Amino acid sequence: MAEVRPIVWKGGKLFLLDQRKLPARETLLELSGARDTAKAIKDMAVRGAPAIGVTAAFGLAMEATHFRAGRIREDLAKAAATLEAARPTAVNLKWALVRLHGVAEDVLREYGEDASPRRVAAAIRREAQAMMTKDIEVNRRLGGHGAKLLSRASGVLTHCNAGALATAGYGTALGVIRSAWESGTRFGVYATETRPYLQGARLTSWELTKLQIPVTLLTDGMVGHLFGTGRVSAVVVGTDRTAANGDVANKIGTYQIAVLARRHNIDFYVAAPTSSIDLDCRDGSAIPIEQRGSEEVTHVAGRRMAAEGVQVFNPAFDVTPAELVTAIITEAGVVSGDYRQGLARAVKKARG
Amino acid sequence: MAEVRPIVWKGGKLFLLDQRKLPARETLLELSGARDTAKAIKDMAVRGAPAIGVTAAFGLAMEATHFRAGRIREDLAKAAATLEAARPTAVNLKWALVRLHGVAEDVLREYGEDASPRRVAAAIRREAQAMMTKDIEVNRRLGGHGAKLLSRASGVLTHCNAGALATAGYGTALGVIRSAWESGTRFGVYATETRPYLQGARLTSWELTKLQIPVTLLTDGMVGHLFGTGRVSAVVVGTDRTAANGDVANKIGTYQIAVLARRHNIDFYVAAPTSSIDLDCRDGSAIPIEQRGSEEVTHVAGRRMAAEGVQVFNPAFDVTPAELVTAIITEAGVVSGDYRQGLARAVKKARG
Repeated sequence: MAEVRPIVWKGGKLFLLDQRKLPARETLLELSGARDTAKAIKDMAVRGAPAIGVTAAFGLAMEATHFRAGRIREDLAKAAATLEAARPTAVNLKWALVRLHGVAEDVLREYGEDASPRRVAAAIRREAQAMMTKDIEVNRRLGGHGAKLLSRASGVLTHCNAGALATAGYGTALGVIRSAWESGTRFGVYATETRPYLQGARLTSWELTKLQIPVTLLTDGMVGHLFGTGRVSAVVVGTDRTAANGDVANKIGTYQIAVLARRHNIDFYVAAPTSSIDLDCRDGSAIPIEQRGSEEVTHVAGRRMAAEGVQVFNPAFDVTPAELVTAIITEAGVVSGDYRQGLARAVKKARG
Repeated sequence: MAEVRPIVWKGGKLFLLDQRKLPARETLLELSGARDTAKAIKDMAVRGAPAIGVTAAFGLAMEATHFRAGRIREDLAKAAATLEAARPTAVNLKWALVRLHGVAEDVLREYGEDASPRRVAAAIRREAQAMMTKDIEVNRRLGGHGAKLLSRASGVLTHCNAGALATAGYGTALGVIRSAWESGTRFGVYATETRPYLQGARLTSWELTKLQIPVTLLTDGMVGHLFGTGRVSAVVVGTDRTAANGDVANKIGTYQIAVLARRHNIDFYVAAPTSSIDLDCRDGSAIPIEQRGSEEVTHVAGRRMAAEGVQVFNPAFDVTPAELVTAIITEAGVVSGDYRQGLARAVKKARG
């Protein structure tokens, strides 16, 4: 199968496959520091929680080459703040920055407050590269666990894009579908277009087509009717942040798919690398929901579709309560039942 | 309040407000016979079950001026078949044609098989005009009944467009909202954009703005999250065909809104003029669901958004089971509980 590489690190520069241009054009966006990387994240040239985390890590790595001797902590804090502000909901972004902070602190501890910025920058760069490699490995392991759950699926629906494009590579929810497909299981794959940003139409359908997995596209309002036809036996989605109790924040529209899945006795799975599990977050009510601008709703493909003067409701995410989730698939195994205990165990296993 | 007139009959010609051009431009489409009228219906220059019924009636009235003496029945059958084939789900289309058939038969009975085509054409035209006038009256009565149900609403959501634009004037679901508003009740109005055809974004938001009723637009995937905020206390939608048992065929996406309304204890009302109630249709499983072309889903505003090679699922309607419907609002009163008995009674009252 063809590989989809959304994030390329080459010669000390970060290149992103510009996802705003897909599926029409495959162009690379060249980045050089924290500020332009934060803008690329905010403007959605890259999206998906794991991809944002790795991208921010490389953003910090590039910025670190400009840190001033003796003022490393100050410069680091400023660069990290710039990156962290880009998207508030994804926990991976914060998680990546905390980790790189730790790496920098290790160097400062070892070499003293006057450690050379180059040494700190190199350590951050190495860690960013390790995070990228590890993300792909994690997704492959997660995919393998999830594939077993789909061994008897007749049809699988996914929402938004939790594919290679949303990660460093391979994908989480699409990684599960892909892994099942690679192991020879065959089922119909359905993708919601995912308004307002159309990640399903633009990205998931592009990625699956590239992987030669046939996909059927539908609008977000067709899910209930599709479920009524009996063609779908499972849903697999990604997550931007999963709380300690199993409540799942993911792309707007996920919650209602879960409600419909329950009504139609369809399994609802969440592909959650442990990096997206926030044990410090007690439940979904503590997850901040980003509200985005009105133009995403009033305009499509740059053209105004709504009447002038309308107000707009545009939350980017919603929260699916744990009670609607059949199982959460992590790289450390599949968790179901008591999520509080199971997720804590999975996180411990993955990090330990 | 400004009036919205989607169908204008003037000098023996039919003029439709071309709804494909809204909200950007208000242009009238001039029609002259059954064939171009059928095409206007099929291409969605006009949409909404009652509007389609009245439009088809005028299409037949115009075509009737070309009927041949002695071959009126043959010409009538052909013209009616052309019009009926334009959209299969809306019962009003068929209902209008059956009624005009009856009018033509009355003339033929009275004046014999050699009745002048002009006489038949005049009778059909008068009936079409009466249908238009009556549709507006029916909507006003329906709106009045429905307004009482919204007297304590905090927020009302509607889907697609069941407004003046979907009827000869005033509207069904929007007629209810408008009537409540005219009687002084104030609540937030929410409109789903209604992909793939964006009737909510393009038509409902335009119509409500024109009526000076503030409206908040959201995508179809945001309904569940919106309901979770507690801002909406009632849903009002139209219907293309309601079966004898209260199962409701309406724009794709309606069913899942009803499922979500039930989960959140939100009232789910259907505005159904008795012309849209099909007592011959036992339940929703007997209602044909039109499948439309894939471009509506793969393209937005004429621009391809999905990857090449995807398959598409594009049903135009879905069926909401009666058990999810709080009440059905007709011009003859509000029906709830035993729909089979209540709807039969409402139809009898309206027609008797």
